[in-house]
Amino acid sequence: MTDNEKNNGRQGAVQLRVRYAECDPMGLLHHAKYLEYLELARTELLRVAGPSYRELEEAGVFFVVAKLDIRYKAPIRYDDLVTVRTRVERTTRTRVDHAYDLYVNGTLCTEAHSTLACVGRDGRPILMPENLWPQEQSDAPPAT
Amino acid sequence: MTDNEKNNGRQGAVQLRVRYAECDPMGLLHHAKYLEYLELARTELLRVAGPSYRELEEAGVFFVVAKLDIRYKAPIRYDDLVTVRTRVERTTRTRVDHAYDLYVNGTLCTEAHSTLACVGRDGRPILMPENLWPQEQSDAPPAT
Amino acid sequence: MTDNEKNNGRQGAVQLRVRYAECDPMGLLHHAKYLEYLELARTELLRVAGPSYRELEEAGVFFVVAKLDIRYKAPIRYDDLVTVRTRVERTTRTRVDHAYDLYVNGTLCTEAHSTLACVGRDGRPILMPENLWPQEQSDAPPAT
Amino acid sequence: MTDNEKNNGRQGAVQLRVRYAECDPMGLLHHAKYLEYLELARTELLRVAGPSYRELEEAGVFFVVAKLDIRYKAPIRYDDLVTVRTRVERTTRTRVDHAYDLYVNGTLCTEAHSTLACVGRDGRPILMPENLWPQEQSDAPPAT
Repeated sequence: MTDNEKNNGRQGAVQLRVRYAECDPMGLLHHAKYLEYLELARTELLRVAGPSYRELEEAGVFFVVAKLDIRYKAPIRYDDLVTVRTRVERTTRTRVDHAYDLYVNGTLCTEAHSTLACVGRDGRPILMPENLWPQEQSDAPPAT
Repeated sequence: MTDNEKNNGRQGAVQLRVRYAECDPMGLLHHAKYLEYLELARTELLRVAGPSYRELEEAGVFFVVAKLDIRYKAPIRYDDLVTVRTRVERTTRTRVDHAYDLYVNGTLCTEAHSTLACVGRDGRPILMPENLWPQEQSDAPPAT
Repeated sequence: MTDNEKNNGRQGAVQLRVRYAECDPMGLLHHAKYLEYLELARTELLRVAGPSYRELEEAGVFFVVAKLDIRYKAPIRYDDLVTVRTRVERTTRTRVDHAYDLYVNGTLCTEAHSTLACVGRDGRPILMPENLWPQEQSDAPPAT
Repeated sequence: MTDNEKNNGRQGAVQLRVRYAECDPMGLLHHAKYLEYLELARTELLRVAGPSYRELEEAGVFFVVAKLDIRYKAPIRYDDLVTVRTRVERTTRTRVDHAYDLYVNGTLCTEAHSTLACVGRDGRPILMPENLWPQEQSDAPPAT
């Protein structure tokens, strides 16, 4: 992995081996399972940046997916080793946008984007605690 | 469905259509997914008997699977219509045993048994509230 | 259900009860599982229109998701009864676009769009057989 | 890991981080997901022993779960790091028995056993190819 891919909390890469139970009768990674891969990639990005997502939830800070788009360009198969490259594209006090590229053997198979919203235990939007999400204040102006 | 299969809280039957996302590269219902079918069958049995499982959890009463055995006798395929026949085999103040038979087109495909334990919000064993599980006091002597 | 919602092969509605195993630690339908609901809704739409998807695959005709976007507007919870309203927005000889609205108790919770591509057993694009997808020639001009 | 735990094709250990999407509203690894962990552990055991399961399927050799029992002794939670220790207990020309112990932080959380049957592409029992499953002839007498 190059320096560029190093997980520094704002961008990073994880590798996942496609499980049998994740594949459909075509022998392909089922298209819904990709979203779990994206979630895992975000979790690992966060783990490096500061608290784990488990610690966040224990502190009453939750992130829910508000929207997501995904483009399946080439199939991913059972037992493939998938690299998910993730980067934070934009953060505000209430939202985080991520972009994702999924590769198998150097081939770009999938592109995706998501927007997460920060909510409290009751599901209502809250401001992200500064200490929990240190990227927030750095390079993005507050936005709705 | 015969009277014998009618859901009366102690035995009942549910029908489930096998989903594409539940099938593996062999085109078969993945063997782990069967456990979700059993869970669904228990949930519907409970719904008839009294409170829904959702209401139970809201009241701080949880059921966790303590043990389970399953015998896969004939494959179940994508788009098959599966009948899960379930019966309560034994209840005590802290545990419930269920037995399950899964049929497709009249063929017995799977047999399973499970033991659930009743726990509180903290995961520790609790006595089942009598009003929530009325079968308890009827026909089963307390047991470990 | 109104006439407008009747499943006529180009639009329809299905109802799904949210399963325990589909929910995450927040008690919400996990965001990846929604894609399985959309798939189910497409399958039932197709079943009314003509062959089942199982029959299509047996005939060597497969549909793969090429792209998808989804907007989660309000949470869906364990045991909720979800209505998925689906309509075919556009069909060509190689692609089908669907739009979806998910409702719980009359509240619009989710909106989504997908594009499916028709492929052969080897995963390469093929023309949709006319008899298998009769909507194609009716009201939609061929497009790329 | 001690020598005893080294994956030598007949026994081995894998580590898995519990994913958010695998957990239920109690925040626990859903009991059906454990079976996917066992499957993964078998797959990695096999990978060391010889061909990967993917290669086996490509050669027309499939393994299906014929029966399974599992005992959930202590809960496994979101983000836990689980060690699955697996050993082949018995092999015949048509079947393989595995035993599994799942640990989190040194605590035994789960015990399980499974029996796999070797089948051909049509789902009918076949003899395991000797070169694909070299353990077979070594220490287990043929059995039904």
